[in-house]
Amino acid sequence: MGNTFGQLFRITTWGESHGGGVGVVVDGCPPNIALDESDIQPELNRRRPGQSRIVTPRNEKDQVQILSGTFEGKTLGSPILMWVQNQDARPEAYSEMATKFRPSHADYTYIAKYGIRNWKGGGRSSARETIGRVAAGAIAKKILREQFQVEIVAYVLQVKDLVASVNVEKVTQKHVERNIVRCPDPDIANQMIELIDNTRKAGDSVGGVVGCVARGVPAGWGSPVFDRLEADLAKAMISLPASKGFDIGSGFNGIHLTGQEHNDPIRSRRGKVRTTSNRSGGVQGGISNGEALYFRVAFKPTATIMHPQKTVDADFKNTTLKGRGRHDPCVLPRAVPMVEAMTALVLIDHAMRHLAQCGGH
Amino acid sequence: MGNTFGQLFRITTWGESHGGGVGVVVDGCPPNIALDESDIQPELNRRRPGQSRIVTPRNEKDQVQILSGTFEGKTLGSPILMWVQNQDARPEAYSEMATKFRPSHADYTYIAKYGIRNWKGGGRSSARETIGRVAAGAIAKKILREQFQVEIVAYVLQVKDLVASVNVEKVTQKHVERNIVRCPDPDIANQMIELIDNTRKAGDSVGGVVGCVARGVPAGWGSPVFDRLEADLAKAMISLPASKGFDIGSGFNGIHLTGQEHNDPIRSRRGKVRTTSNRSGGVQGGISNGEALYFRVAFKPTATIMHPQKTVDADFKNTTLKGRGRHDPCVLPRAVPMVEAMTALVLIDHAMRHLAQCGGH
Amino acid sequence: MGNTFGQLFRITTWGESHGGGVGVVVDGCPPNIALDESDIQPELNRRRPGQSRIVTPRNEKDQVQILSGTFEGKTLGSPILMWVQNQDARPEAYSEMATKFRPSHADYTYIAKYGIRNWKGGGRSSARETIGRVAAGAIAKKILREQFQVEIVAYVLQVKDLVASVNVEKVTQKHVERNIVRCPDPDIANQMIELIDNTRKAGDSVGGVVGCVARGVPAGWGSPVFDRLEADLAKAMISLPASKGFDIGSGFNGIHLTGQEHNDPIRSRRGKVRTTSNRSGGVQGGISNGEALYFRVAFKPTATIMHPQKTVDADFKNTTLKGRGRHDPCVLPRAVPMVEAMTALVLIDHAMRHLAQCGGH
Amino acid sequence: MGNTFGQLFRITTWGESHGGGVGVVVDGCPPNIALDESDIQPELNRRRPGQSRIVTPRNEKDQVQILSGTFEGKTLGSPILMWVQNQDARPEAYSEMATKFRPSHADYTYIAKYGIRNWKGGGRSSARETIGRVAAGAIAKKILREQFQVEIVAYVLQVKDLVASVNVEKVTQKHVERNIVRCPDPDIANQMIELIDNTRKAGDSVGGVVGCVARGVPAGWGSPVFDRLEADLAKAMISLPASKGFDIGSGFNGIHLTGQEHNDPIRSRRGKVRTTSNRSGGVQGGISNGEALYFRVAFKPTATIMHPQKTVDADFKNTTLKGRGRHDPCVLPRAVPMVEAMTALVLIDHAMRHLAQCGGH
Repeated sequence: MGNTFGQLFRITTWGESHGGGVGVVVDGCPPNIALDESDIQPELNRRRPGQSRIVTPRNEKDQVQILSGTFEGKTLGSPILMWVQNQDARPEAYSEMATKFRPSHADYTYIAKYGIRNWKGGGRSSARETIGRVAAGAIAKKILREQFQVEIVAYVLQVKDLVASVNVEKVTQKHVERNIVRCPDPDIANQMIELIDNTRKAGDSVGGVVGCVARGVPAGWGSPVFDRLEADLAKAMISLPASKGFDIGSGFNGIHLTGQEHNDPIRSRRGKVRTTSNRSGGVQGGISNGEALYFRVAFKPTATIMHPQKTVDADFKNTTLKGRGRHDPCVLPRAVPMVEAMTALVLIDHAMRHLAQCGGH
Repeated sequence: MGNTFGQLFRITTWGESHGGGVGVVVDGCPPNIALDESDIQPELNRRRPGQSRIVTPRNEKDQVQILSGTFEGKTLGSPILMWVQNQDARPEAYSEMATKFRPSHADYTYIAKYGIRNWKGGGRSSARETIGRVAAGAIAKKILREQFQVEIVAYVLQVKDLVASVNVEKVTQKHVERNIVRCPDPDIANQMIELIDNTRKAGDSVGGVVGCVARGVPAGWGSPVFDRLEADLAKAMISLPASKGFDIGSGFNGIHLTGQEHNDPIRSRRGKVRTTSNRSGGVQGGISNGEALYFRVAFKPTATIMHPQKTVDADFKNTTLKGRGRHDPCVLPRAVPMVEAMTALVLIDHAMRHLAQCGGH
Repeated sequence: MGNTFGQLFRITTWGESHGGGVGVVVDGCPPNIALDESDIQPELNRRRPGQSRIVTPRNEKDQVQILSGTFEGKTLGSPILMWVQNQDARPEAYSEMATKFRPSHADYTYIAKYGIRNWKGGGRSSARETIGRVAAGAIAKKILREQFQVEIVAYVLQVKDLVASVNVEKVTQKHVERNIVRCPDPDIANQMIELIDNTRKAGDSVGGVVGCVARGVPAGWGSPVFDRLEADLAKAMISLPASKGFDIGSGFNGIHLTGQEHNDPIRSRRGKVRTTSNRSGGVQGGISNGEALYFRVAFKPTATIMHPQKTVDADFKNTTLKGRGRHDPCVLPRAVPMVEAMTALVLIDHAMRHLAQCGGH
Repeated sequence: MGNTFGQLFRITTWGESHGGGVGVVVDGCPPNIALDESDIQPELNRRRPGQSRIVTPRNEKDQVQILSGTFEGKTLGSPILMWVQNQDARPEAYSEMATKFRPSHADYTYIAKYGIRNWKGGGRSSARETIGRVAAGAIAKKILREQFQVEIVAYVLQVKDLVASVNVEKVTQKHVERNIVRCPDPDIANQMIELIDNTRKAGDSVGGVVGCVARGVPAGWGSPVFDRLEADLAKAMISLPASKGFDIGSGFNGIHLTGQEHNDPIRSRRGKVRTTSNRSGGVQGGISNGEALYFRVAFKPTATIMHPQKTVDADFKNTTLKGRGRHDPCVLPRAVPMVEAMTALVLIDHAMRHLAQCGGH
């Protein structure tokens, strides 16, 4: 259960990291949108393992194929099936996983829940599952950009103790893509790359924070109670593998201010209602207010490391698991397109819901 | 839209802060649970305004009434309607709100979305909406406690810069209820109360962090992809009024560790799979692992303050809004039962989903 | 479970026939619709018991009250709570029901499912539950009429072996309301009334068919696969108490034709695509084609009769249940507003879904 | 939208009749069920075109492939992706369809809704879409049979004016599969085959009724209000291509009886509550009562015929469409496995919902 996201622009992802392939069905996409694989592949390339020396080296091309929902290069309004075949078999790399639970992975919890797991990899908990999300998000991003002039930019904001300085009003994807760590602050970016490189060599891993901003979101998207825009974003982000925290606007840092310091004054500017600060992060009472929507997502250091770790085997006997083969020293550069995809999926869904209830005005 | 939470234990809240009343329909509650108003009222009393000098003084008894779904003191399995009549009218207190948007409230975003709002209070964005949540959560808590031996305890962890020390393995509701700020660390609690008191006198407000732990959750609740236990908790918490951040386990602080430092070693203890640390916060891959489930929720300082603020009026002309009447210096003590309620609602839903798919084993 | 209907215009009904009251929450209603109790009450009056000598005599006024979701006579876009207090207690009338299962009622199946039932009446299976549907449907009908020029007319088409002749292109509510049986064919109507009257005196009951037409539905509402317009109508109708069958267009009678005889020829008329016959009933492939949408609903004879019947008691021992008090000789006249309400709820939901995905064009 | 069916055992079908392929994602399937392609293929073979001379001759093998959700021959509890590649291209057969709307097909309504259609075949309205349903239904049937001892048998009950005699308590799949029309009444079956054969030669088509029974359904599945077992069955059946009517138990024929004649007397038999007649069709108040669940589905004569028909072209100009190539003289034999599949999907979903709310007792 729980493999569907969204209410109107609805995606269902499927596939284990090892098996026939991984993919997604997108239901509810508007018709007559120009769409083919070339709209999707660039985003998958940003998500792909092996794209640089600081990410996991699994060597797959992740070539996407659209099997349904388009005709002569346009969407039909019917479900869009996109998938990527699995190639990287290497069963020997996983033989030890067949009988031992990897610490801070989902190996044990899968057994506790289902009584069975595909031990050739992480099954559904693999980051490979996010291929479907990124593919679906590429469609959502395109519609948001072309029909609503909404621009979404995610970036690496922090790696361990290294914190970048990013201006959410101005950062663009171009700034982000200038370096392999996807941090728009060039000086810090270099330090981040060096840190990850050294961590990788030490067989260890680091975590950090991905920031994201959506600009151009009109006032009025969202909902006042459970389906607040920020609540749906929170769910979207915390559903990403290895994420452990989310905050929006001033977030955990806003605590240090008083209400008087924190409130965003409102001013009229060229007939529009604007705020002169943006500690709200673009949402008030669950509904966008027309300011830049920005938030942070905390990712833990990835669990696969190259050091021996205490664990138990399938018979619940104590044992040790030795790391070997390859590992992902830092999930953050690849998390950037995932965060953008999930943001786009939340926004397109709320755009459609707003249209349905309020006629879009 | 968006006034329903949960898939199997499903609640729909209704009502504005001013109008006939506020309430909730609970659909999917198991039958044959002993239930009457006395199970609900104590939780509403913990949420009630006017319960102490450090919370908003709105004077309402919030007396709950059950209109359906029970028979001779037991649940029928049919929808349970619970509601509280509104009493506190005071239209004069809101007259200025009729024509001016309060900064960092939802006044403007409601107009942007719906083109109309109930300006006598905050409408659906009022904390009064959470009455329905707390009432429904009281049922969920009861079932979790009696049928699953799950204990949920929330507490004030931080007010502005004052941080309490709380042991998630041991804290109980008794510790929490010893003082009016609901902080189980007595020394810090006194400082918090003093801080809030002074803030109130200054016509200002403060924010902070509510922590929460659920103990006794068996391994296996949750789902690996979108409906991760922590993702549903994140949505639940960020859907609470004034919340701006969520993290679970090591959360935003886990960033400073490497993977080797962060991973939770696994050991077998009395035939059970346990971890010797709990930076995961009780979930791995979206599924509970049997350890204590704990997380934090950041709340901004409440937006209503007693100082003049820059804003615009209904005609989008610049103006000033003077604070007057009463205000809520700190939402945290009253947020404690709200956080517990939402936690219970997420857990009961996943308990039922687990039962449905995996037969409960 | 299962007390919610609709995806975007979503209603949740609550309440047992005996208890505090019955009602509904409507979530997703567009804002700024003029609405007060006077829009709802006339439809409830058409549904009310005791409205004529040929329906069940339970004597209740069913006075509706709106508790939330409106402000100064307009909808807010927030949940609308409407309810009716229960008045008719008469526990003595139900004393025998406490220990015996009424044949062809839900008494036994409730016990089989829930292990408990509110034996003072039929609980949720009572026709009283439809108060919430009719109240919500009144809002949907109003929006459809005012914003989409859609007119919905239901009528009694058949009582036992008496079949009326009705022209779906021309029948209006005025024709329907001319007599107490709500059959627009005056001659047959008189015979129907006489038949029901005699049946009532004999302590027995009769069933029949309600027909319904929606005119003005634009081409393009609906969906091609599971959520076909006719599939959602089928579910809506078969969810009404005592209904046992549904067909649309030529329905069960279309079987006797060949494809050549059955197909609806298409012609262009004043720039519009029209069909010269309408055996499709206004839908093709799950989507409306702009022709009149019409269908039939079969209702069984009501189960409460004034004759002794074989049954078992709560201990599963064989016994006899004697009919006494009052009974409903024919559900059809009161089913007419229920059928209209459910039709309106299906149509408004699909109108909103169409707007969301296809922008309404 | 609307390509998902079910709440807990949830299927999403995808694919057009012409394009990459057609398939389904099944989410919510219980883990540890033995499953491979050999469990699915036989049902697809029963659905396949070209299986006999009385069905549409489209020549495809419809070989199913499982891409995810199983491991070493068992279900993982994760989404199961099943698909069939499209092979039958024949663009020349559809060239006329590119510019003309086929009467009583969805060609025009698709354009009215989406402004675009895949004119190489019927797109999503093609019976080919049901491949995904039948594949998913095969899993549901297997679980129902093995874990709940529920047996589902559908059969052709009527072709045009030829009505078979079928005993719902005794009919088995073996009886049904004895002839190519899938009618368990051998004499009538021969007449049906002859009728369809002659109709095919005349370039015309016939409709009829498929009956279905589910035996072994325990008392207690279903829900009292909107999600009645029979309401969900109605939606499931009316969502099948070419279906126009549904009734359960006595259905449209029950109208001719009075309540006294229609009610099912209750008797205790070996400690179980049973009814001595079954006009209710196995459900009372939306919940199964332990008796055989049986219902009928009316299918119109298929719309594709080999005769010239009046229609309009893409420019809304009057024209004539000549039938050519191949056509389906009768959908009924192939509808049998579709009806069984949809029945199984409704039942497994309600079995899981019952387990979730009532613990399965």
